[in-house]
Amino acid sequence: MVGDLVRQKLVPSMSKYQTTNSDAFALPAYPLIPSGDIRDQRKSQSNKQREPFVFFIMRLNLKAVMLVLTVAVVVITLGVYMRCAAFSFSPDFVRQFNRHHESQTSSAAQTSDALQDIECSINQEYSVHCKRDENANEVYVPFSFLRNYFDVSGAVTTSGTEVAKFNWMHSTAKVNLPKGKYDARGVFMYFENYNVEVRDRVKCISAAEGVPVSTQWEKRGYFYPTQIAQFALSHYSKNLTEQAPRVHVLEDGDGYQMDWTTPKTSNMTRIWHHKFNTSVVQFETAIGYESAISIGFNQTLDLLLSVDMLLVTNSSSLMVTVQNRDTKHSYNLHYIPADLLLSVQDSNIYYGLGASALNKWRHITRDLHIDVQKGIVLGDKRSPLKVRRSDLEVLSVAFLGIGFYDNITLSTSEHMAHFYDAAEWFVHNQDPKSGGWTNPVRRSLNGFAELSPGWISAMGQGHAISVLARAYWHSGGDERYLKAAAAGLQPYRVFSQDGGVLSQFMDKFYWYEEYPTTPPSLVLNGFIYSLLGLYDLNSTAPAKIAREAGQLFAQGMYSLKKMLLLYDTGSGTSYDLRHLSLGVAPNLARWDYHATHVNQLLLLATIDSDPLIAQTAERWKGYMFGKRAKHN
Amino acid sequence: MVGDLVRQKLVPSMSKYQTTNSDAFALPAYPLIPSGDIRDQRKSQSNKQREPFVFFIMRLNLKAVMLVLTVAVVVITLGVYMRCAAFSFSPDFVRQFNRHHESQTSSAAQTSDALQDIECSINQEYSVHCKRDENANEVYVPFSFLRNYFDVSGAVTTSGTEVAKFNWMHSTAKVNLPKGKYDARGVFMYFENYNVEVRDRVKCISAAEGVPVSTQWEKRGYFYPTQIAQFALSHYSKNLTEQAPRVHVLEDGDGYQMDWTTPKTSNMTRIWHHKFNTSVVQFETAIGYESAISIGFNQTLDLLLSVDMLLVTNSSSLMVTVQNRDTKHSYNLHYIPADLLLSVQDSNIYYGLGASALNKWRHITRDLHIDVQKGIVLGDKRSPLKVRRSDLEVLSVAFLGIGFYDNITLSTSEHMAHFYDAAEWFVHNQDPKSGGWTNPVRRSLNGFAELSPGWISAMGQGHAISVLARAYWHSGGDERYLKAAAAGLQPYRVFSQDGGVLSQFMDKFYWYEEYPTTPPSLVLNGFIYSLLGLYDLNSTAPAKIAREAGQLFAQGMYSLKKMLLLYDTGSGTSYDLRHLSLGVAPNLARWDYHATHVNQLLLLATIDSDPLIAQTAERWKGYMFGKRAKHN
Repeated sequence: MVGDLVRQKLVPSMSKYQTTNSDAFALPAYPLIPSGDIRDQRKSQSNKQREPFVFFIMRLNLKAVMLVLTVAVVVITLGVYMRCAAFSFSPDFVRQFNRHHESQTSSAAQTSDALQDIECSINQEYSVHCKRDENANEVYVPFSFLRNYFDVSGAVTTSGTEVAKFNWMHSTAKVNLPKGKYDARGVFMYFENYNVEVRDRVKCISAAEGVPVSTQWEKRGYFYPTQIAQFALSHYSKNLTEQAPRVHVLEDGDGYQMDWTTPKTSNMTRIWHHKFNTSVVQFETAIGYESAISIGFNQTLDLLLSVDMLLVTNSSSLMVTVQNRDTKHSYNLHYIPADLLLSVQDSNIYYGLGASALNKWRHITRDLHIDVQKGIVLGDKRSPLKVRRSDLEVLSVAFLGIGFYDNITLSTSEHMAHFYDAAEWFVHNQDPKSGGWTNPVRRSLNGFAELSPGWISAMGQGHAISVLARAYWHSGGDERYLKAAAAGLQPYRVFSQDGGVLSQFMDKFYWYEEYPTTPPSLVLNGFIYSLLGLYDLNSTAPAKIAREAGQLFAQGMYSLKKMLLLYDTGSGTSYDLRHLSLGVAPNLARWDYHATHVNQLLLLATIDSDPLIAQTAERWKGYMFGKRAKHN
Repeated sequence: MVGDLVRQKLVPSMSKYQTTNSDAFALPAYPLIPSGDIRDQRKSQSNKQREPFVFFIMRLNLKAVMLVLTVAVVVITLGVYMRCAAFSFSPDFVRQFNRHHESQTSSAAQTSDALQDIECSINQEYSVHCKRDENANEVYVPFSFLRNYFDVSGAVTTSGTEVAKFNWMHSTAKVNLPKGKYDARGVFMYFENYNVEVRDRVKCISAAEGVPVSTQWEKRGYFYPTQIAQFALSHYSKNLTEQAPRVHVLEDGDGYQMDWTTPKTSNMTRIWHHKFNTSVVQFETAIGYESAISIGFNQTLDLLLSVDMLLVTNSSSLMVTVQNRDTKHSYNLHYIPADLLLSVQDSNIYYGLGASALNKWRHITRDLHIDVQKGIVLGDKRSPLKVRRSDLEVLSVAFLGIGFYDNITLSTSEHMAHFYDAAEWFVHNQDPKSGGWTNPVRRSLNGFAELSPGWISAMGQGHAISVLARAYWHSGGDERYLKAAAAGLQPYRVFSQDGGVLSQFMDKFYWYEEYPTTPPSLVLNGFIYSLLGLYDLNSTAPAKIAREAGQLFAQGMYSLKKMLLLYDTGSGTSYDLRHLSLGVAPNLARWDYHATHVNQLLLLATIDSDPLIAQTAERWKGYMFGKRAKHN
């Protein structure tokens, strides 16, 4: 999993420290010393020497002041007597004078002692400016250097009236402690924190499919099964952890009816749909926005639009107008029956429902905030405006052309609708031959032969199975989901070189590959996600399929336990084992991936009591706090 | 190899920096702040605040002084006028006053700008005192904390008249670049730098065997084959790299004769030895030192004594008196025919030649400096005096009792004599059944079952073979050495659990174990040393034995290349693979072992052109300079 990991870095972890004013360092790099100009740099820092003297004078007590002044008067008299010729303090006099008062002034000084500048030669390779406290035999090293050299983080924070404090954070990534034993029917990992559709690498949510379109490895956008599954699992999890949404039914042809504005050239009627056994709205308008039938709103902040509709002609459409309450700028979201993903013209943002959507009833669920934001990004790639959800309000919903609609709602969330959109996508986009959800893009892992479009990922399979297992369970046993999940097991048994995701380490341990490279790359987090899919299906499917999934899970857990320590560097983890496969440098996991490893192990420890899992999780957690393994 | 690695840490690598004054940090640990008393600690540091004010006052120019004094006079007048009631400076007044002068005084200041104290919270776990430069948005972290937290080194150095500089050393261990292709007949690694007998864990050099006695794992002392081989290889290497020794022949009964002091009750005669076809000295004395026959010296600084002798009675002995030129203290070294390793009584130091030495001609070579030093250590274990070689001079050599002697020399070194003493030890102390040089002590590796006395080490075998291969070659083909070396190959083919040193990783790769643990511990440096022994024998032995060694070497090199990256942590190396065998934290190699890994790979790269070896060596070298592998 290279990209589909939510970056919850600095901000969430900072909140842990309950800071009210975070002052993260913005220095680009440690200050290199060009040889020769150390003195010039000292000069430019001169104005920092102000404070000690201020405090010194401020704290002179009365007696001390009197002593100074008495001395001054004597000296002045002498000076005047000598007609100020060649008058000066003796340095010795001054030093003793100063020493005397130091002891009185220092006790509550806010500022520190003056330190000396000292050049730090780093491994004889380059220099940084350090400070030295000769009395305390201490050298102080600038954090801007340390941050890069050791890959640690830190920021000065002040909490309310407290004094400033520097928070040294070995890692800013977050550990998520499991709330209980992992449940295949419950929240997936900690995915309730994920907001897949917000990510930059999500181009938009396809209006035809209701699932995200990725631009991660190909700019034009493509369906990335792993991302679609994460979208589903995050919404499934949010549905369990968030409050129930507020839902406003606007129009259902029956109990809920709105007063639609109907221009003269247009008409709308509520008719009885015999098959659905409910009333629906039929509409017919002239061409041109001014002939649309519409309803307007005041202050409607519920941005999840849901509607059933059937469009009859190419030029028919659903149009929603959303306004930025701050700027008063309006955006028109057009949902049109065309093979188009997303297109933008000024304030008009077009989402294609697919040409095949014509003359079919379609239920669509749109997050209007996401739809507007993705349109803005496409319209202004250089510096797109960031729109906050709370900035937007719905002004109107309108229909154009010829068609029918029913059940229009605006609500605060529609998690399960998103979840099922994705589950349906997996049902309809599985390769019937391999059982895989293929990735339609090239994928190049440094040092490995490029994967051609059509490759299958064990992580994608596992994630999809996690989605489908939940859909099967949540839907009360819809066999289509079960069937797709079971078919999704096939690539776990086929070696990578034969189009599957299976590899073997040292001819011994079976491994399910996130990236089915040759030689194997053995990405750890993707492997564990592939195991969770197996666990989920094992927990929810009927016996035969459960057994099948269970066997693959057991085989994988066996390998995991035998191979887990291969990823342990004593101060962090490797992302994969390419160093063993290719004989190159280890591909170290950056802190957020390392945290993923920890989180995954913590979760596995709730379903597997082998102390190796829990102990390793604890040690790896410690690495995030700078606790290295011992050296001999 | 746990202990037998020379510690050339701080001092040699400091010399690299051409420093004349090294000021290594002596702070025990970073200053922890107990919660609540931050203010108290500030108070205690008050005396460091002296300097800025001194300089401030010192740099007041005449005008400034006059301004201060004028103000003072006005203020005094006012004060007197107000009868000193409620007199005080306004803070604002003082601040402006101060600012005015700051700009004049700072430009050439030797001391840096005053920084503020700031508490650094380390991972929310504990705090250290840092400094903050608010203007530059920089925080300075004390090195005393960093040293422990990151295991780095550093010291303030001043070179002559230069300004002080802080040398940050990621690692202080030393890389030894090979001088050319490794030669089995030449210097072993960089062992010319080793001084095995000087090490604290060497109790003494046995007078019976002429080889070191280790106390590393058992206090009473034992013969440790690995150490004995390192003793041999270091002297072999020194013989090739050092100047030829200065040798003084004192007495050989023929061309060189000394004027021996012979008390009345004693006598000595030079007699012809028919078998040796040379003259030898025969002596007979009464009991008591005063009746010894002896020769005295003036300023004899050559401390390597060599002698052929035959003692007839238990009470016969060789006695050498050595004086500390500084303290004028004398030490009597007694070499006696008894089963005794080392015994000390006041200034009398006794070395046992073995009871079996009676009535046999023996050639002994003694480093009198080492013999005195080890005696001093045994005599005063708490705070033994360190005696420098250059402090000692030989006062006299004497014989007591009944016996013969010949070929007495004093010289600056006797490397090859030491080397051959060790080679003989290996010939005479090989287990005839296993071909192993057994370790007569328990050895406990954390987490593994204890090794019982009698275990064999692949490192010991390899080192011994390196010694014997060189002895075979250097002696011009002494078959005894070849035979012992060839027999020493046997344990390479026997699994650890069967008494050998062979193990297999992942049922795939053969490995020669420094410590034949079950499960395997797979110590890297010991394995490579075991390979060097094979290489040496392959390079020097006749065809059949060479082929045998060559096959074992090739098998090991194959494993090494397949497993080398298992030791790579991306910022250092593991010492062994116990984390894989036991499922525990990696046993990281401390910097000097890491340097050994680098040095070994650099050497192997001269005899194996596989780029994996050279590339890995380069990367591992980079780790010693803080160059970590990239993270994803």
